[in-house]
Amino acid sequence: MRIELLTIGDELTDGRTVDTNASALGRALSELGLVVERITTLRDDREVIAAEMRAIAARSDVCIASGGLGPTSDDLTVEALADAAGVALEHDEASWSHIRAVFAPKEPPGGNLRQARVPAGGRALATEVGTAPGIALDTGGCTFFLLPGFPHELRWHLDRHVLPALRARRGGPSLQVRTLLFAGIGESALAERIVPLGLPETLRVAYRVRPLYIEVKLTGTDTGALDDAAARVAAAGRSDYLGDGATGLVELVLERCRARGLRLGAAESCTGGLFGAACTDVAGASAVFAGSIVAYANDVKTASLGVSAELLERHGAVSEACAAAMVAGARRALGCDVAVAITGIAGPGGGTADKPVGTVCLGYAGPGFERTETIRLRGDRERVRLRSVARALDGLRRSLAP
Amino acid sequence: MRIELLTIGDELTDGRTVDTNASALGRALSELGLVVERITTLRDDREVIAAEMRAIAARSDVCIASGGLGPTSDDLTVEALADAAGVALEHDEASWSHIRAVFAPKEPPGGNLRQARVPAGGRALATEVGTAPGIALDTGGCTFFLLPGFPHELRWHLDRHVLPALRARRGGPSLQVRTLLFAGIGESALAERIVPLGLPETLRVAYRVRPLYIEVKLTGTDTGALDDAAARVAAAGRSDYLGDGATGLVELVLERCRARGLRLGAAESCTGGLFGAACTDVAGASAVFAGSIVAYANDVKTASLGVSAELLERHGAVSEACAAAMVAGARRALGCDVAVAITGIAGPGGGTADKPVGTVCLGYAGPGFERTETIRLRGDRERVRLRSVARALDGLRRSLAP
Repeated sequence: MRIELLTIGDELTDGRTVDTNASALGRALSELGLVVERITTLRDDREVIAAEMRAIAARSDVCIASGGLGPTSDDLTVEALADAAGVALEHDEASWSHIRAVFAPKEPPGGNLRQARVPAGGRALATEVGTAPGIALDTGGCTFFLLPGFPHELRWHLDRHVLPALRARRGGPSLQVRTLLFAGIGESALAERIVPLGLPETLRVAYRVRPLYIEVKLTGTDTGALDDAAARVAAAGRSDYLGDGATGLVELVLERCRARGLRLGAAESCTGGLFGAACTDVAGASAVFAGSIVAYANDVKTASLGVSAELLERHGAVSEACAAAMVAGARRALGCDVAVAITGIAGPGGGTADKPVGTVCLGYAGPGFERTETIRLRGDRERVRLRSVARALDGLRRSLAP
Repeated sequence: MRIELLTIGDELTDGRTVDTNASALGRALSELGLVVERITTLRDDREVIAAEMRAIAARSDVCIASGGLGPTSDDLTVEALADAAGVALEHDEASWSHIRAVFAPKEPPGGNLRQARVPAGGRALATEVGTAPGIALDTGGCTFFLLPGFPHELRWHLDRHVLPALRARRGGPSLQVRTLLFAGIGESALAERIVPLGLPETLRVAYRVRPLYIEVKLTGTDTGALDDAAARVAAAGRSDYLGDGATGLVELVLERCRARGLRLGAAESCTGGLFGAACTDVAGASAVFAGSIVAYANDVKTASLGVSAELLERHGAVSEACAAAMVAGARRALGCDVAVAITGIAGPGGGTADKPVGTVCLGYAGPGFERTETIRLRGDRERVRLRSVARALDGLRRSLAP
């Protein structure tokens, strides 16, 4: 089943609105094991929309369109579909009485009559949200679903009308997905481990770099081949393999602490609170995460974390000695079993010959481990800070490995 | 000039990623007075991408593509463009030495060689962010710009390479933009103040809601009319007007502290470090920002901020009494002149009848001011946390007003 999406509206092409409908549709369909072949976004232009609908009908089996079902003159999707199918628009009394009920006891403004029109041969998709019905029409060997652009109305029509129809129609072997997460390795280095596995051509391998980890998605129809490939890719990841998509890096670290009854804390300098923000981004973090001392100024490192002025004088704030003192201070100040410290030069200024921008020192301490490391990160200030948080989380994950 | 966008990647068609690159490109182009005719999003399929590129070349003058420039086997955009143009790929030594410099002292993984290839007749767009160069190629009467999919890299290439080229090509009276920032007011409330001004039809007014403030962009060709309109819009903003685009909310708060020689600190609970992260997102924050005590657990509020157990018992952690105690503790612990405290219920759990999810208490203290407030925020956990940081920053801005 070849499926395309068509999202319509000037506010999409001029960037005023981010197209979250396309991603919502794509997610819902891929969860059904269905593949969206392409997404086309067009301005409110009846002829252009109609022409694209004819092209879509010629190459695909299903088109889900969103937007342009409103009551105003720039809502042209229904006319365009009628043009594409070469049929007239007909008044749909059921839709009209629904619209009148929505406005009762007032009469609907005249413009709403537009929302009660269906191309001949099509059917209105009854709605309980908003005024506009959805519309379904088979033309040129393609089934068109026209859905409202309001995200919650779109979702309602999707769940009630579109997904059930596609589920019934799909049949055959359905696409399945295996998601694997990796941390502590770059995208290309990971690919160099996966490519030699010579996975079956029938499987699709897709990489995606997320702020805190790399996501590898295997897609195919053969369950056995997928499971085998997933196992081999996971093994190739060695200690850089986090697990399946269900558990991100933050969740994994929190879970490992929770499982062992350990309380987590941090001391941050260059990340300024990003590590704590990442941990508390997860609901329920309070069960494990105690807090973080953001010691941006050196005298705060001394006052709140007990890093001696002599140490700062001798080694500097960006040093493994300072990271070790910070992590010890964090455990004391926050009463934590496990802590991490991050101190570095995020740039753009502050770099030196021996400590260039991107130099970050980390300290880890917990039951049975106490270590520090120095890493060199590339990129701008934002990236250095994010990568520092990712490294700190991954360092904790490895230290807490069962 | 007919312009199309082409965004590439399975993660877009399957909905894992919301396509913010398309909207960022659409916004940037419409600010130049240019119109995006259509946006096409395709999967990582070399033949399909190449075929679409040929179709785009046949109907448009410019195509800006994003994504698929990475080092792995599913990054196919450059091959596809070479296919579409019917030319070979050539090694670009300048790009390769940049990539090697990025990885130095290590050698780049072999896969990165892919990123140093340019279709014959095209040119690499030098980059200072990330490893992949952009690519520009004229073929079939259409100029293709291939840009990386990482938003900050895309933005960099857009500003350095693409927009200047399109500005030069467009000709005509050059559009100018005035950017004004507002905080502490909603988008529609702000519009209700600006619409009655009856600004000239020749000016384009665009609103954009950012995490920490609202951005209003005035676009036009008449400098005098623009300056006059900007002045009137700023005046209509009253105390909610922050200034021009040059100074965001964080920068403004830091600047007001710097100007008065005040040191800034924070105590955070529900935001978990987001406030500190926002302050230190600005290079040079260290001149003003001392740090933040992220006291997520109540016993940390007591130990590190001196919030008494009795107070927590009587009023609860989400209370103005707690916020006041936290802000006092932050000033002591961090040795700050000015501090803010944030404690609230970000959700999804933890809400009660009298303190529902979204209830946030803030405390502000500094020379000549000491106050607390309770606000109710709508939205999910992420939004509540972001809006809390925005409110804390705006509260500081108003307290520090000259």
